[in-house]
Amino acid sequence: MKRVEYRRRGPVPQDVVEVVERETPAPGQGEALVEVLAAPINPSDVLTLAGDYGTLPPLPAVGGNEGVGRVVALGADAHGPGPGQMVLLPVGIGTWSTHVVAPAKALMALPEGADPVQLSMLTVNPPTARLLLTDTVELPPGSWVLQNAANSAVGGYLVQLAKARGLRTVNVVRRESAAEVVEEQGGDVVLVDGDDLAARVESATGGAAITLGIDAVGGMATERLAQSLASGATLVNYGAMGGEACAISPASLIFRGITLRGFWLSWWYKQAEPQVRAALFAELAGLIAQGQLSARVQTAYAIDDAAQAVAAAASGGRDGKVVLLPNGAIGG
Amino acid sequence: MKRVEYRRRGPVPQDVVEVVERETPAPGQGEALVEVLAAPINPSDVLTLAGDYGTLPPLPAVGGNEGVGRVVALGADAHGPGPGQMVLLPVGIGTWSTHVVAPAKALMALPEGADPVQLSMLTVNPPTARLLLTDTVELPPGSWVLQNAANSAVGGYLVQLAKARGLRTVNVVRRESAAEVVEEQGGDVVLVDGDDLAARVESATGGAAITLGIDAVGGMATERLAQSLASGATLVNYGAMGGEACAISPASLIFRGITLRGFWLSWWYKQAEPQVRAALFAELAGLIAQGQLSARVQTAYAIDDAAQAVAAAASGGRDGKVVLLPNGAIGG
Repeated sequence: MKRVEYRRRGPVPQDVVEVVERETPAPGQGEALVEVLAAPINPSDVLTLAGDYGTLPPLPAVGGNEGVGRVVALGADAHGPGPGQMVLLPVGIGTWSTHVVAPAKALMALPEGADPVQLSMLTVNPPTARLLLTDTVELPPGSWVLQNAANSAVGGYLVQLAKARGLRTVNVVRRESAAEVVEEQGGDVVLVDGDDLAARVESATGGAAITLGIDAVGGMATERLAQSLASGATLVNYGAMGGEACAISPASLIFRGITLRGFWLSWWYKQAEPQVRAALFAELAGLIAQGQLSARVQTAYAIDDAAQAVAAAASGGRDGKVVLLPNGAIGG
Repeated sequence: MKRVEYRRRGPVPQDVVEVVERETPAPGQGEALVEVLAAPINPSDVLTLAGDYGTLPPLPAVGGNEGVGRVVALGADAHGPGPGQMVLLPVGIGTWSTHVVAPAKALMALPEGADPVQLSMLTVNPPTARLLLTDTVELPPGSWVLQNAANSAVGGYLVQLAKARGLRTVNVVRRESAAEVVEEQGGDVVLVDGDDLAARVESATGGAAITLGIDAVGGMATERLAQSLASGATLVNYGAMGGEACAISPASLIFRGITLRGFWLSWWYKQAEPQVRAALFAELAGLIAQGQLSARVQTAYAIDDAAQAVAAAASGGRDGKVVLLPNGAIGG
């Protein structure tokens, strides 16, 4: 078997990963051996390689937090999906690998026929989008939600999930070329960021009182969202694509009563009951299997090209996710 | 009578005020005529003159939001403190004036013998400090609270009110010369702001988990407070002495779960029941009368020197409040 390991962290994430050959392990008591079909490279993976993430695994480590595989073999007393079954891998086990061993009962069976690449991105970005929409502010049907980085994977999921819930989205992007993609995904309003954002949001929504803003850019982009929200609204930050601290004016905080907070899926995972997690995964897997929820994929890479894949994931201006296919093209 | 009026707003606040002579009004039905003894110039007054405050009165307007006076005469059917009684004026009636007319029942009688200058500052800064301490986060006795701008009037009140409630304060100031004053007021720890603030707060408090931070500076000073707080803490901004937007890193928001919000006393006044307001004023007036709560006064000005007083209030590096004595020195 092969896997993508790193022995140090550093500012150029593609320089720290190496593809290594290892003995394929045998599944132990209660375990399953799984062949990995697809595993994405998320922004949080890139930040982890750079040492800039909120939690960092001890070194050496195997890259990759999520993925989909097919059960190869079960160990003794392993109760879970059987050989041949497509499964969702548990979060955080190092999925950039041709094979992984996992507790059999931690594997969630996935519907055959659904796209393994889409399913491989189930546990990080879609729950983020879904929880940003549902767990921050009570939103009656028909409400508007305002987000930037709308052409990111989370942004795209959020557009689709909002639509499915009868919510409307104002989507902010940083370049004109990204606007079309967001419109295709069903974004109700798409605007290019700029100083007069609040006036354009007001005009596009007929002066709607928007009580939830979602920021993944930081810098003055945060303040521009704040200015576009209703008094008393909540602004949630979940990323820093602009590389700067969030800026928010005392006028927005004090006179307009905007609250700025963060959202981190890791916190949610820590406190969510197992059945709540499982229900969320099942809901999202169902939407993906029905083709109602998907992310654009920019490029799929073989495991031997992991460094190139990491470099692509780390670069700005992407129009889709970067995914590893550790066992080669799927369905060939 | 004389009063301080302004017919326009502008960036140099002392240039827009003028002292004008007016006919002394007679109190109407239910009204009282009050001679103003003392009225402070608050940062919110300066921002209002500059046009930078959250609410702006129609022009022309009379300056001053709070003050203390002595009743001169009551109109017909006026039920309230009688002639000669020292009273707290209702908030927002234009107190930079030798005389004001106010609804008699809106006047709160004040204890004789207490310092009218200290009492004149009762309704803006002390309630801000008190509500920041009590209405944001539940603080068990012995808890630490972290604030910057600790040598401001609100900062000084907060130190005194925290002490009276069995809370301990970490006070951040921007210059060494301000530290001593805060120590004299009873600040438990006083630190000069700087990049290593979080480490020095940790060391000074023995690694206490601080759940409430109070920011009146903005810019990177906000982030430095965020870094000094416990995960999950709340950071409340009530001012922008540094003149910049608050900066807070996605790492503080996302990985450490810091929430940043604003506090505006005007919002509180809008929603507080009259008896809740009255109880708060009575509590604070009692503390002031007993000498347990006070602010330093830098200079007291005659009403004819109002422009000079506004200039002094607008300048940085003050070590105390600027107060107008519209009827001259008190007790002379």
